[in-house]
Amino acid sequence: MPDTEIAFEHIRAAAERIRPIAKRTPVMTSASFDAEAGVSAFFKCENFQKGGAFKIRGASNFILSIPKNDLAKGVVAHSSGNHAQAVAIAAQFVGAPATLVMPEDAPRSKMEGTRARGARIVTYDRFKGNREEISAQISAETGATIVPPYDHPWTIAGQGTAAKELLEEVPDLDALVVCIGGGGLLAGCSIAAKHLRPSIRIFGVEPELANDTYQSFAKGQRVKIETPPTIADGLRSTSPGELTFPILRRNVEQVLLVSEDQIRATLKFLLMRMKILVEPSGAVAPAAVFSQLLPPGLKRIGIVVSGGNMDYDQLAKL
Amino acid sequence: MPDTEIAFEHIRAAAERIRPIAKRTPVMTSASFDAEAGVSAFFKCENFQKGGAFKIRGASNFILSIPKNDLAKGVVAHSSGNHAQAVAIAAQFVGAPATLVMPEDAPRSKMEGTRARGARIVTYDRFKGNREEISAQISAETGATIVPPYDHPWTIAGQGTAAKELLEEVPDLDALVVCIGGGGLLAGCSIAAKHLRPSIRIFGVEPELANDTYQSFAKGQRVKIETPPTIADGLRSTSPGELTFPILRRNVEQVLLVSEDQIRATLKFLLMRMKILVEPSGAVAPAAVFSQLLPPGLKRIGIVVSGGNMDYDQLAKL
Repeated sequence: MPDTEIAFEHIRAAAERIRPIAKRTPVMTSASFDAEAGVSAFFKCENFQKGGAFKIRGASNFILSIPKNDLAKGVVAHSSGNHAQAVAIAAQFVGAPATLVMPEDAPRSKMEGTRARGARIVTYDRFKGNREEISAQISAETGATIVPPYDHPWTIAGQGTAAKELLEEVPDLDALVVCIGGGGLLAGCSIAAKHLRPSIRIFGVEPELANDTYQSFAKGQRVKIETPPTIADGLRSTSPGELTFPILRRNVEQVLLVSEDQIRATLKFLLMRMKILVEPSGAVAPAAVFSQLLPPGLKRIGIVVSGGNMDYDQLAKL
Repeated sequence: MPDTEIAFEHIRAAAERIRPIAKRTPVMTSASFDAEAGVSAFFKCENFQKGGAFKIRGASNFILSIPKNDLAKGVVAHSSGNHAQAVAIAAQFVGAPATLVMPEDAPRSKMEGTRARGARIVTYDRFKGNREEISAQISAETGATIVPPYDHPWTIAGQGTAAKELLEEVPDLDALVVCIGGGGLLAGCSIAAKHLRPSIRIFGVEPELANDTYQSFAKGQRVKIETPPTIADGLRSTSPGELTFPILRRNVEQVLLVSEDQIRATLKFLLMRMKILVEPSGAVAPAAVFSQLLPPGLKRIGIVVSGGNMDYDQLAKL
């Protein structure tokens, strides 16, 4: 399915479809952030989303789009992070059996959270096993549908509902700033935002250490990097998606890069001054604005805060 | 001025008066909190308030009620905490000179925050000096008006605007739960809530270690305790106010007590699961609900989260 087929209509339909599962998250403002950054920022707080991240939007739109007969055979996904939680929540909601393929050394809290949602967990050895193969095998044996984390039209349309809600609440934005992992969130959000406000300027943000999309933009084709060692663990994908990349190239003006220190400083500011907990990945888009990396002249900035899941130990270390 | 003179009309007027200064804070819900507590909780998030706590409501209503001629002579207040910040913000807004009397060992961040608002700081030795006397002397010398932290009708009416907003947004609450320091927040909120929903049941919450109002309820008169060693540093007042106490006795069904461990556990849950940072005092009212201390049968519970100010070191220790 070529990407041109993902239109605002699909996002509108996704919004209707996921309404019983996903939350309409609040848009927050902060006088102290604005004073530091020199803009008026509007934070779409997906850290308050069900499951603690935007992922439930794409996962639930995908799972609710699976034909009934297939759905009865279940779903399977591989993830050690927010996508796993989201798939477990959405599958539980529709009563479909879910299998999550997770590395055997995944954080216990995430495994327990997933299991508490009634999902079955299949573990593998991160150094020997191949999670794609394991998922494919489970799918072949059981007929379960694989739920992709970003590179699918249903997923992308679901993620786009975040920007739809933001623009409905704050229509007159000059710019939209979104982090990039596989690019599903930014791809969907860029389609929604450009439709609702054609003049909006759209920026993606990556950690300097995870600059696969930045490099891909420079080269004009998808670049693959080594698994990046950034603290933004939700953005460790190694290349933009086949579907997401052309959408980003069309809609995104520039990919901005933030340092690990900028991510940490922004996370700390959001926590201590704005009183919201975001995970390192969730601080990446705010960090670009906080560090004044946007071109001058942009005043009203929408920022998607992608998630807030963190282990207590991880927070203590920060 | 007898307390009976504080009526909903004063709270309504306060809401109009403080609109240019105080924020209308969001009301948040959390499926995971509800699952643990067995209720539907509605959090009035004053940790997102300007200055990081509800205090700006009372301070700005007070300062905006001072006659013009007096206001030109300035304001003075003693506080090492949220009241100081609030007075500094409100005074800066109206362009009145502000003097804050703070202990010389007050947290640097709070002193700097206050100074950044243009306020003058007078320090004193916590063990030798008497802050009430210092304030009174400054007031006598300069004509500055003392801004009381809780025991004044203007302050109480200002704090009541928090419950007014909450009940306007969620009218059908069964109960309202609010922490007690000097009692200004609960006094004002109880007047607003009883007016907007006469059937509502109202609960105050104190740390076990700071149970002056609990003891006062039991005895039927104001009891004074030693400065309590609770981590909820905003609730270390030693007795209920002269004005606030009769209001509480009339409107509050019961004073609930929470342990230091319950405060810590609730703070942690609010941070890691709900992704909001609250200060220990701000976790006191939620802790009573989280620990299921309310009488059975109450389903829809309004909870005022009083504030979110904390030093980084303090958070790290928790």
